[in-house]
Amino acid sequence: MRQHKLALCGEHFLEWVPEQTQRFIEKYKMFTPSDRILVAVSGGKDSLSLWDVLLRLGYRADGMYIGLGIDGGVDYSTQSHEMCVRFLSNLQSPIPNTQYPIPNWQPTLHVVDIAKIYGETIPQVAARTARGRDKPCSVCGLAKRHIMNRMARDGGYDVLATGHNLDDEVAVLFGNTLTWNGSYLVRQAPVLPADKPGLARKVKPFCRLYERETAAYALVRGIDYIYDECPFAEGSTSIAHKEILNQMEKDSPGVKLQFYLNFLRAREEGLFAEQATYVELNACEKCGQPTSAPGLCAFCRLWEKRS
Amino acid sequence: MRQHKLALCGEHFLEWVPEQTQRFIEKYKMFTPSDRILVAVSGGKDSLSLWDVLLRLGYRADGMYIGLGIDGGVDYSTQSHEMCVRFLSNLQSPIPNTQYPIPNWQPTLHVVDIAKIYGETIPQVAARTARGRDKPCSVCGLAKRHIMNRMARDGGYDVLATGHNLDDEVAVLFGNTLTWNGSYLVRQAPVLPADKPGLARKVKPFCRLYERETAAYALVRGIDYIYDECPFAEGSTSIAHKEILNQMEKDSPGVKLQFYLNFLRAREEGLFAEQATYVELNACEKCGQPTSAPGLCAFCRLWEKRS
Repeated sequence: MRQHKLALCGEHFLEWVPEQTQRFIEKYKMFTPSDRILVAVSGGKDSLSLWDVLLRLGYRADGMYIGLGIDGGVDYSTQSHEMCVRFLSNLQSPIPNTQYPIPNWQPTLHVVDIAKIYGETIPQVAARTARGRDKPCSVCGLAKRHIMNRMARDGGYDVLATGHNLDDEVAVLFGNTLTWNGSYLVRQAPVLPADKPGLARKVKPFCRLYERETAAYALVRGIDYIYDECPFAEGSTSIAHKEILNQMEKDSPGVKLQFYLNFLRAREEGLFAEQATYVELNACEKCGQPTSAPGLCAFCRLWEKRS
Repeated sequence: MRQHKLALCGEHFLEWVPEQTQRFIEKYKMFTPSDRILVAVSGGKDSLSLWDVLLRLGYRADGMYIGLGIDGGVDYSTQSHEMCVRFLSNLQSPIPNTQYPIPNWQPTLHVVDIAKIYGETIPQVAARTARGRDKPCSVCGLAKRHIMNRMARDGGYDVLATGHNLDDEVAVLFGNTLTWNGSYLVRQAPVLPADKPGLARKVKPFCRLYERETAAYALVRGIDYIYDECPFAEGSTSIAHKEILNQMEKDSPGVKLQFYLNFLRAREEGLFAEQATYVELNACEKCGQPTSAPGLCAFCRLWEKRS
């Protein structure tokens, strides 16, 4: 880990990742051992590693998998779901050479299958809506945010945790900086508080871990995960930004972490005007979830349009 | 010019650059025909093209060359000075096929030779001061800002114009964004008002022209300029940033211009907090120029330290 001038063997690395995660959980006041946590798991390395780390740290963390109905020639969603199920079934096998106990309870994996509930997969909704005209990514993000928020709220969870790593956060920050999108910029944070009625508290405990670190954790820890990117991710802006940022990181190790931390510090020190952070929200007429739109929220409008 | 989806022949390009420059001068309220303008010229393509364009547009623009005493094996400063002198001597020759008249007066080229006035060249000062320990660039920038401000003020000029192009501005903005340097971020602008006693008004009329456009202008217009970068520029952060930005521009033409314009718009719309823009200045005890330091300004401290 060149940015920390630190090299660790596999065993110590398996200690280091949970220690670091615990540090960030405390530093950003994400949650405490008494909180009930819902982890959004996709079957990928980040979210499964996060779930694993939270359980090893003794947190009461359940998982939620959202079935998007993406095939992409590799049966992507079915494979992803399978990885989450496999993770759970391996949880009770012993973990060699670590101080961390096997969880003394069996966490739940909630599964929300979009096609079963709404009658269409994400690619199908995308194909017939303006929002999904070019690619389903915008529809998919919208649906995931909606369902994650609802599951966290309805399930009585105190906090929703996602596996976003530093590379994810930096790519988003970079994109929002290039466009100077003020309302997105000021809201990007390790913790999004539940400061509006109906909004779940959202946290990103891996936001300071590089992607190669979460990947290494999954590998060394023996967590099976889906290696493929989502088949629709190819050519996305965030992947283009990640390539630029990887090149910058290669030239100056640590530049991603510094970019992210400097941003958090500057905001903390009052760089942004307060009015820039304000967004008026009201309840969707159909589902009751908070929305900045009048009437129906964007998620409900997706399904309303069906003829 | 892919960002504008525009291709021009040489003749129309020689019309387009002054037209664009005039548009920016008006848009950002830089100056009017009654103002006396001091152009900081380095002998490079940007500043000589700027001087040429301002004269062709009918502005009363004198030039100022600062002799830094940089050799770098290519007699850099002497060559640069020579280019400025040559520019002036060619000014009265006719310009074929354009609507722009030859200026009906002969502008002045002020020359400030640092070694003659202060007894040392920039590399010599840098070599014996902490600020210049690694490279003379920080000392050089400081000296240039100090002298430009003094010359503009003492010469009774209304405004100081520099040849910064879009690539320069974007590289600086990019660097200040990576570090989230709030006080630098909020002050980067096409116009820096003379809002403190002793501060000259500073403008950058080329801030929206790509470097390749100012280079093309100098070429088509037949302006001789010094092709070499300053010998100390090699390996600088801003050049590294320019390379990254060039790659991004290649992948999505116009991204530099959009990054810059989005930034200006976001600030205009109140993204930044007001207190972030405030800097307390007082007069230097020796030279009287405004400084944020107590006692002597950083420029005077450079020469004080001489044993």
